[in-house]
Amino acid sequence: MPADIDLLIRPEWIIPIEPAGVTLSGHALAVSDGCIVALLPIDEALQRFRPRQTLDLPGQVLLPGLVNLHTHAAMSLLRGYADDLPLMRWLSERIWPAESRHAGPDFVRAGTLLACAEMVRGGVTTFNDMYFFPEAAADAARKVGMRAVLGIVVVEFPTAYAADADDYLAKGLAVRDALNGDPLLSFCLAPHAPYTVADKTFINIATLAAQLEVPVHLHLHETRHEIEESLKQHGVRPIERLHRLGLLGPQLIAVHAVHLEAGEIDLLAREACHLAHCPTSNLKLGSGIPPMSSIQSIGINFGLGSDGAASNNRLDLFREMRHAALLAKGVSQNAETLDAHATLHAATLGGARALGLDGRIGSLLPGKAADLCAVRLDEWLIQPCFDPASHLVYVAGREQVTHTWVEGNLVMSNAVPLQINISELLDMTGLWHTRLTS
Amino acid sequence: MPADIDLLIRPEWIIPIEPAGVTLSGHALAVSDGCIVALLPIDEALQRFRPRQTLDLPGQVLLPGLVNLHTHAAMSLLRGYADDLPLMRWLSERIWPAESRHAGPDFVRAGTLLACAEMVRGGVTTFNDMYFFPEAAADAARKVGMRAVLGIVVVEFPTAYAADADDYLAKGLAVRDALNGDPLLSFCLAPHAPYTVADKTFINIATLAAQLEVPVHLHLHETRHEIEESLKQHGVRPIERLHRLGLLGPQLIAVHAVHLEAGEIDLLAREACHLAHCPTSNLKLGSGIPPMSSIQSIGINFGLGSDGAASNNRLDLFREMRHAALLAKGVSQNAETLDAHATLHAATLGGARALGLDGRIGSLLPGKAADLCAVRLDEWLIQPCFDPASHLVYVAGREQVTHTWVEGNLVMSNAVPLQINISELLDMTGLWHTRLTS
Repeated sequence: MPADIDLLIRPEWIIPIEPAGVTLSGHALAVSDGCIVALLPIDEALQRFRPRQTLDLPGQVLLPGLVNLHTHAAMSLLRGYADDLPLMRWLSERIWPAESRHAGPDFVRAGTLLACAEMVRGGVTTFNDMYFFPEAAADAARKVGMRAVLGIVVVEFPTAYAADADDYLAKGLAVRDALNGDPLLSFCLAPHAPYTVADKTFINIATLAAQLEVPVHLHLHETRHEIEESLKQHGVRPIERLHRLGLLGPQLIAVHAVHLEAGEIDLLAREACHLAHCPTSNLKLGSGIPPMSSIQSIGINFGLGSDGAASNNRLDLFREMRHAALLAKGVSQNAETLDAHATLHAATLGGARALGLDGRIGSLLPGKAADLCAVRLDEWLIQPCFDPASHLVYVAGREQVTHTWVEGNLVMSNAVPLQINISELLDMTGLWHTRLTS
Repeated sequence: MPADIDLLIRPEWIIPIEPAGVTLSGHALAVSDGCIVALLPIDEALQRFRPRQTLDLPGQVLLPGLVNLHTHAAMSLLRGYADDLPLMRWLSERIWPAESRHAGPDFVRAGTLLACAEMVRGGVTTFNDMYFFPEAAADAARKVGMRAVLGIVVVEFPTAYAADADDYLAKGLAVRDALNGDPLLSFCLAPHAPYTVADKTFINIATLAAQLEVPVHLHLHETRHEIEESLKQHGVRPIERLHRLGLLGPQLIAVHAVHLEAGEIDLLAREACHLAHCPTSNLKLGSGIPPMSSIQSIGINFGLGSDGAASNNRLDLFREMRHAALLAKGVSQNAETLDAHATLHAATLGGARALGLDGRIGSLLPGKAADLCAVRLDEWLIQPCFDPASHLVYVAGREQVTHTWVEGNLVMSNAVPLQINISELLDMTGLWHTRLTS
């Protein structure tokens, strides 16, 4: 007897990520109760299952939903607010003043809503966020239907959100307690960066991370300036400082990691740390280009991040995939570096693994959540297509994404998020544009 | 009495490129007989002109059509045919064998048609081509309604197109004679590269370029390998070799120019050579990253090129703009390098100047041809917009281009080229896909 299932998807191709390097055709994905039931040849699927809905996707490729391993979602309201400026001037002259005037819960709710809408449009199903008022970000993510990892952000200085490091931690942990049990939400400890967090706070965070079994997500070795300041103030480079404070380990997600010495790459590998590679933001802020070829060959796990829209200026994982693959080749002067399948891995399972969510998302193994996206490769202006995997990385853009599912729920199709009203979203961004420019 | 004109365009913003760094609002562009008549405040336009058609473009920015300064248009049929391979293996194992089997006039006509359709979709109005059978490329460009600069390609070895260097030159010059007088077509001498063209041929080409007053367009210092081979065979690096052969000068468009020593940058500047910067192709083939910050600060004129779709894999100047701006910042570790307006300049007037067409296209000065594109910046997923110029470079994609005009003719709107049949185009690319994979 065939088993009842919710949905059978029959695309032209499926890239399951696990096993690695595989592109299937003639296969179908069976989904029920928000989970992947099976990935199997179409003939077999028709014998084994009686789907309530069957979706044929000719000319389209199905893959796991993309994971944005580092963003400040609310900053989508500051998209293009300050371009062509170096990091420290960008922060101190433009971003921080705007945030100190505007960044309350309403700003975060509105900005994260825009960010989530943009992300699901482009096939992103999970984002790892670092911003103030995570409860407002959670509201927005739930509204759009996305999976979110909310950062429990910590800096030493006061903002509209909290007074000091202990206050940031207390507020973040309270949000975590309040939202515990939501299947689409989880948490990270998110100390902002070595230059904004004190030793004592880092030690607390290491303890908390071990107790709560949550990742620690921070900006690390983003600029030469950060490293020089650490040498002046602490006598060591930030990675060594964090090592001494007990922060390195498989719970650590080091964001950026642009400037790494060989010994630091070895250390990060030995400690099984994860990296969030943000190629666009690193270029745009003039931070530099991380040594991805060495990082890849030593086997450090990494995912891809868009960073915030103020330094990118899109929350577009297709763009990050392309930039990551291209830069790795250009810098190593080896076109075989970071090939298409390795890049797709980084944008899905690599990010999921860094977040400790690889048992749940990141590949199309049965039992995992049905976080998926479908991308059409038959549009005239991207013809011909010889290899769907390399077409995803080097040709297609987010404009070719046709469907996005989170836990089996269709959250985007026909180019729009399904759970929100676009006209209201436009009104809201217009309002914030006026506030920010007045 | 108001003067009759063909068209008055009233967009939200106009970026004229000349004067530099300017974004106008409340202005209109008057077009008649394929030329720009005036760029002026809307009130004044309504007094001075009686347009046969008025086009309001709220939320859109109008700018000169983009110039693709280096491509092999016909290779769009080889889009993604061989990815993740280094240049010499890519050429010798994949591209050259495919070309030797397939690259006849039909291939060139079909591939260039696809390329031109793709380019006008993305706001490109002029392309500088280097490929065999330029008469077939000319057919395709005329069909789509694009402006083309056709390369009179020269290599020493025989192909289906020609037998030896003299034969290539003779065939190319015959095409030039035959098509002379078409206002949308012009010609370049296109010796392929230092490693495929002999001294004697270069000397002929220098003479011809001076006689015919046409640019010379060649791949130069693309890879380290090319330079090493030149040192072995000629005892000097390729730029020095060309210098001795009399090729350096304002007629030269050096494509790629990835590997440059300080003295070579000085020499190219002194000789007033132009560069065609192809950031995506240089990364994808692992060639490297040119020192654009030094090139920009010494004042060498440069435009942007997509290269062919086999090494990019899109003929998308929005992508090249973004990659150029981002890379220049990342490599120089200075976020102020190659700002948005400088990047827009490279993609328009920079390319036009290299081609000797800056009297005709590249900016919105009265008297120039009405080669234009309009881009919508009011789409929800790219909100908010604080600065149209930086939004064009860092946020928008070719999917936001709404109209493309060449000499006042609308050649693209509603996401499709207007002069060709897309369904026929798809059939044709399908046919070539089958041939290339069988």
